[in-house]
Amino acid sequence: MLVVVTGIPGTGKTTVATKAMEKLAGEGVKYEMVTYGTVMFEIAKGKKLVENRDEMRKLSPDVQKTIQEQAAKKIHLMGMNANIVLDTHCSIKTPKGYLPGLPEKIVKMLEPNVIVIVESGADEIHLRRQGDPTRARDAESVEDIRLHQDMNRNFGAAYAVLSGACVKIIQNPQGKADQAAGEMAGVLK
Amino acid sequence: MLVVVTGIPGTGKTTVATKAMEKLAGEGVKYEMVTYGTVMFEIAKGKKLVENRDEMRKLSPDVQKTIQEQAAKKIHLMGMNANIVLDTHCSIKTPKGYLPGLPEKIVKMLEPNVIVIVESGADEIHLRRQGDPTRARDAESVEDIRLHQDMNRNFGAAYAVLSGACVKIIQNPQGKADQAAGEMAGVLK
Amino acid sequence: MLVVVTGIPGTGKTTVATKAMEKLAGEGVKYEMVTYGTVMFEIAKGKKLVENRDEMRKLSPDVQKTIQEQAAKKIHLMGMNANIVLDTHCSIKTPKGYLPGLPEKIVKMLEPNVIVIVESGADEIHLRRQGDPTRARDAESVEDIRLHQDMNRNFGAAYAVLSGACVKIIQNPQGKADQAAGEMAGVLK
Repeated sequence: MLVVVTGIPGTGKTTVATKAMEKLAGEGVKYEMVTYGTVMFEIAKGKKLVENRDEMRKLSPDVQKTIQEQAAKKIHLMGMNANIVLDTHCSIKTPKGYLPGLPEKIVKMLEPNVIVIVESGADEIHLRRQGDPTRARDAESVEDIRLHQDMNRNFGAAYAVLSGACVKIIQNPQGKADQAAGEMAGVLK
Repeated sequence: MLVVVTGIPGTGKTTVATKAMEKLAGEGVKYEMVTYGTVMFEIAKGKKLVENRDEMRKLSPDVQKTIQEQAAKKIHLMGMNANIVLDTHCSIKTPKGYLPGLPEKIVKMLEPNVIVIVESGADEIHLRRQGDPTRARDAESVEDIRLHQDMNRNFGAAYAVLSGACVKIIQNPQGKADQAAGEMAGVLK
Repeated sequence: MLVVVTGIPGTGKTTVATKAMEKLAGEGVKYEMVTYGTVMFEIAKGKKLVENRDEMRKLSPDVQKTIQEQAAKKIHLMGMNANIVLDTHCSIKTPKGYLPGLPEKIVKMLEPNVIVIVESGADEIHLRRQGDPTRARDAESVEDIRLHQDMNRNFGAAYAVLSGACVKIIQNPQGKADQAAGEMAGVLK
C-alpha cells in the first residue's frame, strides 16, 4: 500500500498520520512514513549536488524536476515491498500560484492506492498558525486558506483520475485528532 | 451521441433521464439507456466468471479493471451507431475515499460528447434517502453529501479535460423534475 | 514566459491584464497580448477557409479542432521568444455544458508557465453585465455565474496537473482593479 497524505500547514496532518500509524502498529499493521522532500534531498546529496536542504531550492528547475522523478520511481518501488505513508503537498502555494505537488508524470509513477487530504476549518488553521512563531511573517488570510483547501480538492480529483487512486478527505477539527486518526487508520488498513 | 449521466443516490438522475428520453421520443429523437454496471455484468457472465450480480464485487480488482475496459470499448461502439444515455457514477464513495468512476483510460475509450451531473440540495438528498428503507444503515450526513457532490464536480472537470467532452450540471430540486428533464432533453437534442 | 489569462465575462480580466502589462512596461519588462481566438482566425483566413470572424463558428468541429491545435503550436513558439499573455477561456458555457478551453492536447502543446483565473463576486459580475447592453439577451443568474467560476477552478487545477503550470486565482472586486493588476504584475515578473 502506498498512501499519499497531504494537508496544508496547520491542518495537523502529521499528527493525524502518526496517531493512525501508532494505532495500526498496535494491531500488527506496519507502516513506514516517507517524506517526499527528504527522498529528493537524499538523491541530490548522493549525487553531490547539495550538502544541506537549504541548497535544494537553489537547484535549477530542470534538475529539481529530474530529482523529483527519480524520487517518485524510488518511492513507488518502496511501496511495492512495504506499506508507505508518503508525506507530501497536494499543491504548493508560490507567488505565481498553486503548483501541483503531483503533476501527471509523478502521480503516474507513484501509482498511489489512496490520496488523503487532511482538512481543518480555515479559521482554525489561521489561529493555529498564529500560535506558531515560525510562520509569523507570511500570514495568510482566512480567505486565502479556504481557497488553498478548495484548490487542493480539485487537484486531488485530477490526481485520482490520472492514477486510478481513491481520494479521501479527512476533517481534523480542533480537539478531534483521535477521531481523524481513526478515520485515517481505516484508510490504511 | 454518447451522454454520460451521473448523480449521487437521491438526486433523482434516473427519473430525470427517463423523463428527458420520453420527451425526446415524442419529438422523434431516440435514445437508449445503458447502465455501465449491467454491461460489465453481461461481459463477466459471458466469460462464465459470475452467475449473478452480487458475485461481481468478489472478482479480483485486476479482473474488474479488465472488464471495466472491455465495457468501455463496447459502449463506445454502441455510441457510434445509436444515441446512448450511459448511466454510471461520477465517483464511488468507498471506505478508502472517492474512487473515480471514469478514470483516464476509461473516459478516453468512451469519448463521451457530454458528461451530465445531476445535483440536488444536500439536505433534500438526505431527506429523500431517509424515506428509502434500503438505505437506512449507511446514512450519510448532510455535510458528507455536500462533499460528495463537490468532489464530483471536480472529477467531472478532469474527465472533460481528458476527453474533450462538455460537463453539464443540472439541478433537480424537489418538485422540479420536469424542468430538470427539459434541461437534460436540451443536452440530448 | 507564457501566461494564460482567463476569467468569465464581467470579471474585468482584460482591464487587469492591460494594467499589469503597462505597469511592467514602466519597469522595462515587455509582454505581448495574444488572443487565442484571433490566432485561430488568422490561421483559418490564411487557409482561405473564412473571410471574417463570424464564419469561424460555421466551420466543422473537426476543422475547428485542427485549427485550435495549429494555434496552440504557434503560440507555444511565440512564448519561446517573447513574454506572452494569452487571453482565452478556462471553459466556454455552451447549451451542452462547460466545454474546456484548454483540453489535454492543447494545454500540453502550449506548456504555459502560469494559468491565471481572474474572478469577481458573482453578484458584481451580474451587475456589470446588466450595464452592458450587448449582453441583455442571455442574462445568467447569479447562481449560474457562481457555478461557472467554481467549475473554472476545477478546470484550472486539471490543466495545471497535465501541464505542470501554476494556477493563480486573482480576485478583482469592484474598485480594486489596480490591486488586482499589481497581483498579476507579480505573476508576470
